Amino acid sequence: MIENIDDDNFSRTTVAADQLRAIVERIERLEDEKKEVAAQIKEVYAEAKANGFDTKTLRKVVSLRKKRPEERSEEEAMLDLYLSALGMLPG
Amino acid sequence: MIENIDDDNFSRTTVAADQLRAIVERIERLEDEKKEVAAQIKEVYAEAKANGFDTKTLRKVVSLRKKRPEERSEEEAMLDLYLSALGMLPG
Amino acid sequence: MIENIDDDNFSRTTVAADQLRAIVERIERLEDEKKEVAAQIKEVYAEAKANGFDTKTLRKVVSLRKKRPEERSEEEAMLDLYLSALGMLPG
Amino acid sequence: MIENIDDDNFSRTTVAADQLRAIVERIERLEDEKKEVAAQIKEVYAEAKANGFDTKTLRKVVSLRKKRPEERSEEEAMLDLYLSALGMLPG
Repeated sequence: MIENIDDDNFSRTTVAADQLRAIVERIERLEDEKKEVAAQIKEVYAEAKANGFDTKTLRKVVSLRKKRPEERSEEEAMLDLYLSALGMLPG
Repeated sequence: MIENIDDDNFSRTTVAADQLRAIVERIERLEDEKKEVAAQIKEVYAEAKANGFDTKTLRKVVSLRKKRPEERSEEEAMLDLYLSALGMLPG
Repeated sequence: MIENIDDDNFSRTTVAADQLRAIVERIERLEDEKKEVAAQIKEVYAEAKANGFDTKTLRKVVSLRKKRPEERSEEEAMLDLYLSALGMLPG
Repeated sequence: MIENIDDDNFSRTTVAADQLRAIVERIERLEDEKKEVAAQIKEVYAEAKANGFDTKTLRKVVSLRKKRPEERSEEEAMLDLYLSALGMLPG
């Protein structure tokens, strides 16, 4: 919290040091946690790659799993429509 | 350019002000240009949307056009393989 | 533009191929331009570095120039207040 | 793991479905965790803001705390040098 103190002698802004320190330390702990989880994700991909999986395809799969099946098939139909209009579909 | 001047009386680092200003101004002009082009791209998408096109699909098309046909079909085959292994393909 | 055609014999969605192609090509041209400008910016920084300038500081300068002087000094005063509360200011 | 099976009758690529599923589920769990931590960080900032703290300054403080004091003061000296060369420092 910030306070503006104005009296005859001085005008200053103070900040609650303890509260500020607590906030900053909480953020730092959480950022460390986030970095740790991000490193674990990277590790799973690296391990998968070492086991012969294609990580680019894995990422697409993970992203597609977030969508409902109808959503996915609608998006794919639309994409095929556009690609076909541009002569980009085989056959 | 930065110079370190050390003599009996003082030690300081100076920077060639004119050269610095020229660099900064060139960067600013180029950043303005880049922002302008980015705004034009956004506009094309907005216009396309107003004409009934689906911008998400458009973005995918633009991205797919950067790949060779074989590259695209290999990637799609690999994706289908993974999706099918996970029971995510219809049929 | 997309059309839904429904008659006795078929139901399909078509997309105006020429219009689609024109849109995609406009986007591609603009994306090329943007990439070109981005490359020029990178070049200016590389040249500046070769001339002894510190690019990290240059980036900060470019970013600070976007703010009004009062805005900058208010932000700096606030930062000093917080840093001082945390014992991070020298003196 | 991916296997290429080639015999007289067919050529196909298979993927170890169980292993693939396990990998994808691990990634999904970790991504959920990461999202959760990111949400908590956002919450701390929101709470800090509600308590009168300036979040932009907080972010700068968190970022500056990652640097050693000498690193910070060198960077600031360099920045002041550049700003002064451009007439951007008061006084």
